[in-house]
Amino acid sequence: MPLLPEPLDRLAAEFARLPGVGPKTAQRFALQVVGWSVDASRGLERALADVRDGVGRCPTCGFIAPTGELCAVCRQSGRDTGLVCVVAGPTDVLAIERSGGYRGLYHVLGGTLSPIDGVGPEALNLDRLEARVRESGVREVIVATDADVEGEATAAYLAERLQPTGVSLTRPAHGLPVGGELAYADERTVAQALTGRLPV
Amino acid sequence: MPLLPEPLDRLAAEFARLPGVGPKTAQRFALQVVGWSVDASRGLERALADVRDGVGRCPTCGFIAPTGELCAVCRQSGRDTGLVCVVAGPTDVLAIERSGGYRGLYHVLGGTLSPIDGVGPEALNLDRLEARVRESGVREVIVATDADVEGEATAAYLAERLQPTGVSLTRPAHGLPVGGELAYADERTVAQALTGRLPV
Repeated sequence: MPLLPEPLDRLAAEFARLPGVGPKTAQRFALQVVGWSVDASRGLERALADVRDGVGRCPTCGFIAPTGELCAVCRQSGRDTGLVCVVAGPTDVLAIERSGGYRGLYHVLGGTLSPIDGVGPEALNLDRLEARVRESGVREVIVATDADVEGEATAAYLAERLQPTGVSLTRPAHGLPVGGELAYADERTVAQALTGRLPV
Repeated sequence: MPLLPEPLDRLAAEFARLPGVGPKTAQRFALQVVGWSVDASRGLERALADVRDGVGRCPTCGFIAPTGELCAVCRQSGRDTGLVCVVAGPTDVLAIERSGGYRGLYHVLGGTLSPIDGVGPEALNLDRLEARVRESGVREVIVATDADVEGEATAAYLAERLQPTGVSLTRPAHGLPVGGELAYADERTVAQALTGRLPV
């Protein structure tokens, strides 16, 4: 006979689908929920339903947006619509917006190329990007995918695919973190910072 | 203007009430949910509602049980009803049951005494324990709270409170982990293992 009621095991299995949540953590979440008040549990259920019904992806750039509407960035006036920064996911948009140093638009791929995990070009938001570049007067695409194997492969693929459009393609500069100390930077970052050195 | 739709921030705030989930992780969970299918989201909502309506605490021992029913341990025939093991939470019951070496019943306190966090005796499932000991023919109570400050304080409080009932009170043995090496055990464990040494 199982020790725990079936709904509890099922709730743990549902929690285990969240990123980085293993079976042990999922069970801890589910046991915690048993201790919640009815209102607390209803609060999470309602928030889930509201996100399911009311939140989706921006039809232009793929960032998080109210269902069927443009996202907050695409709606904002005063943005440089000729500049598009391509990122893997919505958290990258949040990070760049926090920096306050970017006034262009975004394009969220929804992942990076990873043949090992079966993520090919068709799984990413790429057709829409090509259409934007061809039809919306984009003059520069900044490819801001991460500097890991998948991110670099995605950047290389994008460069090849967008080359016929004649758009200018750039990558963010790699180098020493602002405020960081040379002695504590990793070797590849130091090498990139020296290769990409600028006149004072 | 906020970058993310209001329901997404609200969902993140709800996730942040799970144990060990900070604001960053909660936002990652919420963003993940946006990518889920309608069925996947509904699955979590339904599991939450089913736990809210169908899962509660055992009226006898405080372990997880179907609402209004005895838990799987209390319902099981062949258990030694004269032996009660007191633990802080339901995960302790699961750990002891996994060991396969215990055939008595349990009593789940729902926490440990912690004056700093405002957890006094009235916040724990103690009245019910005292009633069980007085009324249900319990001959031995094993106090299996953790060997940290709160666990030891809870054990001391319990000993004082149950002493008038004349029940036998024990603590699980502390010592070297089975299969563990002496050289890698911490000092307090080694000291406890030597103090509690047994004839070969």
